[in-house]
Amino acid sequence: MSCLIITIGREYGSGGSLVAKKLAEALSIPFYDKKLIEIAAKETGLSEEFIREAEQHRTSSFLYNLSFSSRNLPVSDQVFIAESKVIKRVAEGGPCVIVGRCANYVLREQKNCLHVFIHAPLSDRFQRAREEYRIPADEVQACVLKHDKARAAYYNYFTTGQWGKCQDYDITLNSGTLGIDIAASALLDLIQKKEATI
Amino acid sequence: MSCLIITIGREYGSGGSLVAKKLAEALSIPFYDKKLIEIAAKETGLSEEFIREAEQHRTSSFLYNLSFSSRNLPVSDQVFIAESKVIKRVAEGGPCVIVGRCANYVLREQKNCLHVFIHAPLSDRFQRAREEYRIPADEVQACVLKHDKARAAYYNYFTTGQWGKCQDYDITLNSGTLGIDIAASALLDLIQKKEATI
Repeated sequence: MSCLIITIGREYGSGGSLVAKKLAEALSIPFYDKKLIEIAAKETGLSEEFIREAEQHRTSSFLYNLSFSSRNLPVSDQVFIAESKVIKRVAEGGPCVIVGRCANYVLREQKNCLHVFIHAPLSDRFQRAREEYRIPADEVQACVLKHDKARAAYYNYFTTGQWGKCQDYDITLNSGTLGIDIAASALLDLIQKKEATI
Repeated sequence: MSCLIITIGREYGSGGSLVAKKLAEALSIPFYDKKLIEIAAKETGLSEEFIREAEQHRTSSFLYNLSFSSRNLPVSDQVFIAESKVIKRVAEGGPCVIVGRCANYVLREQKNCLHVFIHAPLSDRFQRAREEYRIPADEVQACVLKHDKARAAYYNYFTTGQWGKCQDYDITLNSGTLGIDIAASALLDLIQKKEATI
């Protein structure tokens, strides 16, 4: 059982979510990925699909935002605020692993966190997208780059940092050169060491 | 005894050199930092001071380069080429720790490397510069920022990457939030795991 809150940002296709799941299982703590969308949907009354869409449309979103805007806030801002509240509440609830959704930024003032970013060379990510996510070969490149762009735009809009810039994290790992298992295992070692100092 | 070549890039004042020294000692392998300057000086006939200057003058260097230029290459390019040759040769010699000088880029095709970048929040780096490097308090900020700028300019000019961008490394660590000892110890764990796969 860990006493840390672990946030994991990740490039699409890097296996970051898999690393996060392995950590949560090894540490016997809750894992929040898409589950955050479910919780935010229940709390805001918005549909899960709507929230998922809002997460993807931060860049070319002017008309999209305008069309769904209410309460004087663009819809993506509403979704970000709702998800941030959920992130803060689950973090108050105790140790857990939270994937994506700028959780490192949302919890930047919270003690006992470990902020992680997982990346990998494009070739490894193309392969994972094809083999694990079953993206058709002729769509893989566009799919990976589109997701990266959306995640970067979302993070860079809602935070004062820059998506994937190492200074925003305690540790970044290349899951392509190191491998998923070594990355997860290295994080477990680091977590143990950090916990020993708390 | 390690079987890896470890390159360590670092922000000024992050304690990256200290982490590198700890690793080299723990692994009983050679440590190359300023020693690379000595070796490059002997091989090129340039003075150590001249090389040190060239390493710092990549940005505002047009006149500087012009004044010392020979063999149709600006002096900083000559120094980079000389240092790169030394880096490749010491890497061929076996496991070692190499600090700075774009070693991760120079050795990008070499197998059995671990490329590391150490960073820390500015406040921690100001403190280290004051307390460890004895920089006067009123000069600390300018000194840290000047060194960062010079290192970034040098790396960004001579490589196709971007200094400190996590994608250029296997692992980056925040020595401010984690502490020097935990950062070094986490690297030792990772090295052991990676070596077990070789």
